[in-house]
Amino acid sequence: MVATLKDVATLAGVSVKTVSNVVNGYAFVKAENRRRVEEALAATGYRPNVGARNLRRGRTGFLALMVPELSIPYFGELAGLVITAAQQQDWSVLIEHTQGTRERERATLGSLGPHMVDGAIVSPEALEAEDFAALGTGVPLVMLGEHAVDVPIDHVAIDNVLAAKTAVGHLASLGRRRIAAIGQNQHRGTAALRLAGYRDALAEAGLPQSDDLVAPARNYHRRDGAEAMAHLLELPEPPDAVFCFNDLLAIGAMRAAAERGLRIPADLAIVGFDNTEESAYSLPALTTIAPDKAAIARTAVDLVRRRIESTDQLAPQDIQTPFSLEVRESTVGRAT
Amino acid sequence: MVATLKDVATLAGVSVKTVSNVVNGYAFVKAENRRRVEEALAATGYRPNVGARNLRRGRTGFLALMVPELSIPYFGELAGLVITAAQQQDWSVLIEHTQGTRERERATLGSLGPHMVDGAIVSPEALEAEDFAALGTGVPLVMLGEHAVDVPIDHVAIDNVLAAKTAVGHLASLGRRRIAAIGQNQHRGTAALRLAGYRDALAEAGLPQSDDLVAPARNYHRRDGAEAMAHLLELPEPPDAVFCFNDLLAIGAMRAAAERGLRIPADLAIVGFDNTEESAYSLPALTTIAPDKAAIARTAVDLVRRRIESTDQLAPQDIQTPFSLEVRESTVGRAT
Repeated sequence: MVATLKDVATLAGVSVKTVSNVVNGYAFVKAENRRRVEEALAATGYRPNVGARNLRRGRTGFLALMVPELSIPYFGELAGLVITAAQQQDWSVLIEHTQGTRERERATLGSLGPHMVDGAIVSPEALEAEDFAALGTGVPLVMLGEHAVDVPIDHVAIDNVLAAKTAVGHLASLGRRRIAAIGQNQHRGTAALRLAGYRDALAEAGLPQSDDLVAPARNYHRRDGAEAMAHLLELPEPPDAVFCFNDLLAIGAMRAAAERGLRIPADLAIVGFDNTEESAYSLPALTTIAPDKAAIARTAVDLVRRRIESTDQLAPQDIQTPFSLEVRESTVGRAT
Repeated sequence: MVATLKDVATLAGVSVKTVSNVVNGYAFVKAENRRRVEEALAATGYRPNVGARNLRRGRTGFLALMVPELSIPYFGELAGLVITAAQQQDWSVLIEHTQGTRERERATLGSLGPHMVDGAIVSPEALEAEDFAALGTGVPLVMLGEHAVDVPIDHVAIDNVLAAKTAVGHLASLGRRRIAAIGQNQHRGTAALRLAGYRDALAEAGLPQSDDLVAPARNYHRRDGAEAMAHLLELPEPPDAVFCFNDLLAIGAMRAAAERGLRIPADLAIVGFDNTEESAYSLPALTTIAPDKAAIARTAVDLVRRRIESTDQLAPQDIQTPFSLEVRESTVGRAT
């Protein structure tokens, strides 16, 4: 038998309204009544009906999360953290993955209406500013990552230029002189920012810049990293270090290098980006940029909640979350 | 401007009803009319309103997917495949992750009502049969995996006993004589089945069974595999091979072995389970059992759809999807 508010009220000897006030977290309940209600809640095992509560609040109870691919560990880890942060505020999360194509991203935005979700957290890879016109009116939106779309909406990201510069500066500080980069070759978005940070670090270290050392990757998967690395190793003067725009590319690059008999890091030092759990266990363990993923998830849910709960026009927020450099075996070797 | 059914009908010179019949895939439309509608659909860029369509069908348009953890690559990959299979049938997917605790799994079941989702695909780790009483009536359910709950519902899984036997048989066929196992130590569910397959293979190969060689893992993460492996390597007679109940445990085991200076596979051969993409790129690449994850996702969505669309009482289905053994460097070394 499922306990009702009324069962709890009877046991506690208070009104249903008082039980409801306690369950909904209102402050103006007498301490003695609150204690009795809490005991009765525990004794009956009463669970609030979240669906009904959302209905009263005029909520659907759902947030949408749009990511390119759940099978990319960064997004799998991030989605898990968003679900956890959303659950703490009574939201369930509807996940759409788009494979990062503009068409699928636009269709996802177009499908989001206020009848369906209270708000949306989107991590686009290809959307253009005009695509946001397709969005159902009145759905608060938060954008994650660095795909630059010139629309006035809330935005959460790390400082990608500084992060990339930190990674490449680390390689330069170890005495590496021919430092390559592997990533998508784009004029804007995440890849452009990481490329800018790479170039900044080379300039600051007084190292030569060469287009040969920037190896484009088709996508962000392991096989793309292996392909790009194979290409770099065929250069007349191959690199002695490589900065990869994500951990998957770095894992692929490590395999390509190892298959050709190179020792990591003696012959080739490698840095990744994302600090996926895989990077701490790979052989060698991967030095990588570690964004604070839990902070990204929490901040995104807080921003969307603020917009859902406010009746005012709020100015768009642009929030930078912290990152660190995790130094591991792929650049400094194994501790002996 | 968004095109409406009426715009399409005007351009095609047919009735709105005819356009609607084409859009909804009904068969009884004259070929000539169908051609004209399809041209007009393309010319206007009309997109059906999936929400409205679901409303007409009496659907919510949502399926729920319950998994233990999205940050476990097997579940990230599987969730992506379920989303893809569901999208092809106009469903969006609501993902809940439970950390595999009975409490969270029960709460998730309890939150699913027909007002919220049309059906649910659940991958439980701790649910008991009585917990299913909490499920909102009328929500068709499909269960994934081998957590044995004695309730008459549809079920999709691979033959875990045979798969484990295949993995361990492979190790025996390579001449390994002290074959260990790393996994959760349970009396039922996935781990129990994989342990049974391990014991079957040892018996068939005439190899000794020893409780020492079965190393319990706290959970299915990389660190649990590393811990269990460290323990096995402290035995007076350490193993020459190990079968891990998933790839993450195997990745952790490889790191623990490598840190102690063991060569894989010369000193220690390792087999995993799941064929996550990580396993094809690790150094050495991991031999692993490869369940057909796309088939699991497709079958689950088909089963739940069959139940949603039927007004009859359907007998519960128990469907086994195929698997294979991917032989890689961690058991046979690198091809030279």
